[in-house]
Amino acid sequence: MSVELTRLPSGLVVVTDAMPHLETASLGVWVGCGSRDEREEEHGIAHLLEHMAFKGTSRRTARQIAEEIEAVGGDLNAATSVETTAYYARVLRADVPLALDVLSDILADPTFDPEELAREQNVIVQEIGAAEDTPDDIVFDHLQATAFPAQPVGRSILGTPASIRSFDGARLRAYLGRNYRAPEMVVAAAGAVEHRAVVAEVERRFSAFNGSAAPVPDPAKFGGGIRVEARDLEQVHIALALEGVPQRDPELYALQVFTNVVGGGMSSRLFQEVREKRGLCYAIYTFHSPYSDTGLFGLYAGTDAADASELMRVVVDQLGAAADDLDAKEVDRAKAQMKAGLLMALESSSARAEQLARQIFAHGRPLAIEEIIAKVDAVTVESARAAGRELIRRSPPAFAALGPAGLESAAAIAESLGRQAA
Amino acid sequence: MSVELTRLPSGLVVVTDAMPHLETASLGVWVGCGSRDEREEEHGIAHLLEHMAFKGTSRRTARQIAEEIEAVGGDLNAATSVETTAYYARVLRADVPLALDVLSDILADPTFDPEELAREQNVIVQEIGAAEDTPDDIVFDHLQATAFPAQPVGRSILGTPASIRSFDGARLRAYLGRNYRAPEMVVAAAGAVEHRAVVAEVERRFSAFNGSAAPVPDPAKFGGGIRVEARDLEQVHIALALEGVPQRDPELYALQVFTNVVGGGMSSRLFQEVREKRGLCYAIYTFHSPYSDTGLFGLYAGTDAADASELMRVVVDQLGAAADDLDAKEVDRAKAQMKAGLLMALESSSARAEQLARQIFAHGRPLAIEEIIAKVDAVTVESARAAGRELIRRSPPAFAALGPAGLESAAAIAESLGRQAA
Repeated sequence: MSVELTRLPSGLVVVTDAMPHLETASLGVWVGCGSRDEREEEHGIAHLLEHMAFKGTSRRTARQIAEEIEAVGGDLNAATSVETTAYYARVLRADVPLALDVLSDILADPTFDPEELAREQNVIVQEIGAAEDTPDDIVFDHLQATAFPAQPVGRSILGTPASIRSFDGARLRAYLGRNYRAPEMVVAAAGAVEHRAVVAEVERRFSAFNGSAAPVPDPAKFGGGIRVEARDLEQVHIALALEGVPQRDPELYALQVFTNVVGGGMSSRLFQEVREKRGLCYAIYTFHSPYSDTGLFGLYAGTDAADASELMRVVVDQLGAAADDLDAKEVDRAKAQMKAGLLMALESSSARAEQLARQIFAHGRPLAIEEIIAKVDAVTVESARAAGRELIRRSPPAFAALGPAGLESAAAIAESLGRQAA
Repeated sequence: MSVELTRLPSGLVVVTDAMPHLETASLGVWVGCGSRDEREEEHGIAHLLEHMAFKGTSRRTARQIAEEIEAVGGDLNAATSVETTAYYARVLRADVPLALDVLSDILADPTFDPEELAREQNVIVQEIGAAEDTPDDIVFDHLQATAFPAQPVGRSILGTPASIRSFDGARLRAYLGRNYRAPEMVVAAAGAVEHRAVVAEVERRFSAFNGSAAPVPDPAKFGGGIRVEARDLEQVHIALALEGVPQRDPELYALQVFTNVVGGGMSSRLFQEVREKRGLCYAIYTFHSPYSDTGLFGLYAGTDAADASELMRVVVDQLGAAADDLDAKEVDRAKAQMKAGLLMALESSSARAEQLARQIFAHGRPLAIEEIIAKVDAVTVESARAAGRELIRRSPPAFAALGPAGLESAAAIAESLGRQAA
């Protein structure tokens, strides 16, 4: 086992997987906070902070942050999600200390210069505009808001132009100080790295985050309902959600198998029925995103307005049918895909670092691959069907659609999924 | 050197890179034809054929093709571009023979069942609709058409609903028989593979393509000009092109360095000036795509309608300025990024297989990493500047934009790039 873990006295976890045949390393800082840790009046601040981290520290200007990593051929990026914010780099072996220096500096000592802030607020307003122009992005924002109404977990990660422009350095500092806390931070690294060297760097550089853990956000409450928006588009963009299960739920793997059988690949029921048999769409897929206390089963499809109702009818029927009659061959195929996916992730330093960080947040420790495979193997036809039945029963559906026409009838069919189960 | 190459008597090249620490393999068939090999009346047939390859053979139904690979946890995909079409799989070590069997079967013996064809024509019409709804996709179709007017190389890869619906099995067979020829096919594999075993499978399974090479398409002629389209969007989506250089041009690496300095990363001139200093956009980047006989230098940016002219003015100024005064630090940074990118690609089986296939098409042989690094290292400040000056001189600009307003004035500024250079 090449995975090594050190928990510092502060609670910060350093986890590494040395892959000795590699010359490059992927490493990053994962923080256990995201858009759902925002207060009512902080909509979009988690993501704004992620941008502002790159805009200068006492030791480095924004340009120096960009140039130092790129001068050694590396790259630096970041991403904000509902429950985590990640800052990560990919560099050559020799540049791991530099990457850790930059990553710690931008989080421990951002200056939030007012001019930089004003420009970056503008950049995010542009990013919001770009998302608005991408129907298969924005339909997921609408879906999340319908699934989790009137809660931070249901709000768009980007915020609104007005909320973004309302923030100043003091508000950023307050969010940062409250949420970027050592007990909820993980430094994960994979590839050309050496555990003790990474730990030594982290011990030296990450003391600014010492202190008690951040407050736990309110429990998520899945709502459901309909949100449709007429738009002059070529396609109707449809997204459907049902409440899934949390990261540590015993049913997690059974539900992942169900999700995969229904819409996880070219051999899935929806791909075969909707695209291959009926030719109704180019893209259709399902996914399951587990959070700490809930989960979201989701579906996306794009189709002609004239075909939206037929497509939605097939989706509703196939979800119900799969929960009744998915078979051993389908379960075996889903398991094979999940297990191969695990092996493939082990072979990519960036996927591996991220996987380790996520395991620390969900389970407090890295999971051995054999342990995950055993959980996948334990799924049976009956447990996968049961997970599907529970999924349909657990919540009313959330439905979001954008397009020129056909939205209401597709929405009504989506709603029948709830009524069938009631 | 772990790369091994075998050229079969038919001309088909088998190239592998065994990466002994991996348990999974990436492999595929790359064919040296794409949208520019279509005849006048064949618009979109290269991509339709790529879809129809998955729709059944004498030995396998469409469903069996999907199920056989996914049953072992693998996946199978394909992509059509201007000059190549690729069919590739990622599988566990033991399933490499199965993957080669499926890949050869779908290309050597597709049945083009009329019912499957009718459905797939519908799927592609949906795909065209999805692309139409994605401004930062469709603006590149418009750019390509403006850069290479009235030539197959300038047409959209997807075709039009009318052209797609006009094709039948005989037309597909004619395109396939003309273009899928052993001298222009490469089977590339990387990861958990053994060269001799791959060669033995390929020898057994790929005889259907024996024969002389396909006709060479007409030389590309860079045109240039303006294409703007008013659309009710949040942003103006802008794309600009200039004629670049072919894959084997001695100036290739100098132009790649220039492209990288101008818009290749966070430290690039355009990212710094347009996003970091002026806050005018979320996304701005440049790229250079070399083809066999020409190349396309491209730029994308999304911005507010009110800012489109200012953004375009900065782009024009920065392109000219970089050709005059880019400096040693910038060149070194670009080189470091290109070299690190090469190392990173070596560590990914899928990137490696694709890289090898592309090297065979461009150079007739795999390039040693040291050889590429030597070419990158040979770029000087003066050669990078010269590549930039040549770029601006070589062709008038092609400009495409979609958005609510500000398109004409931005277009006029883009055109001045040509006039400055004249």
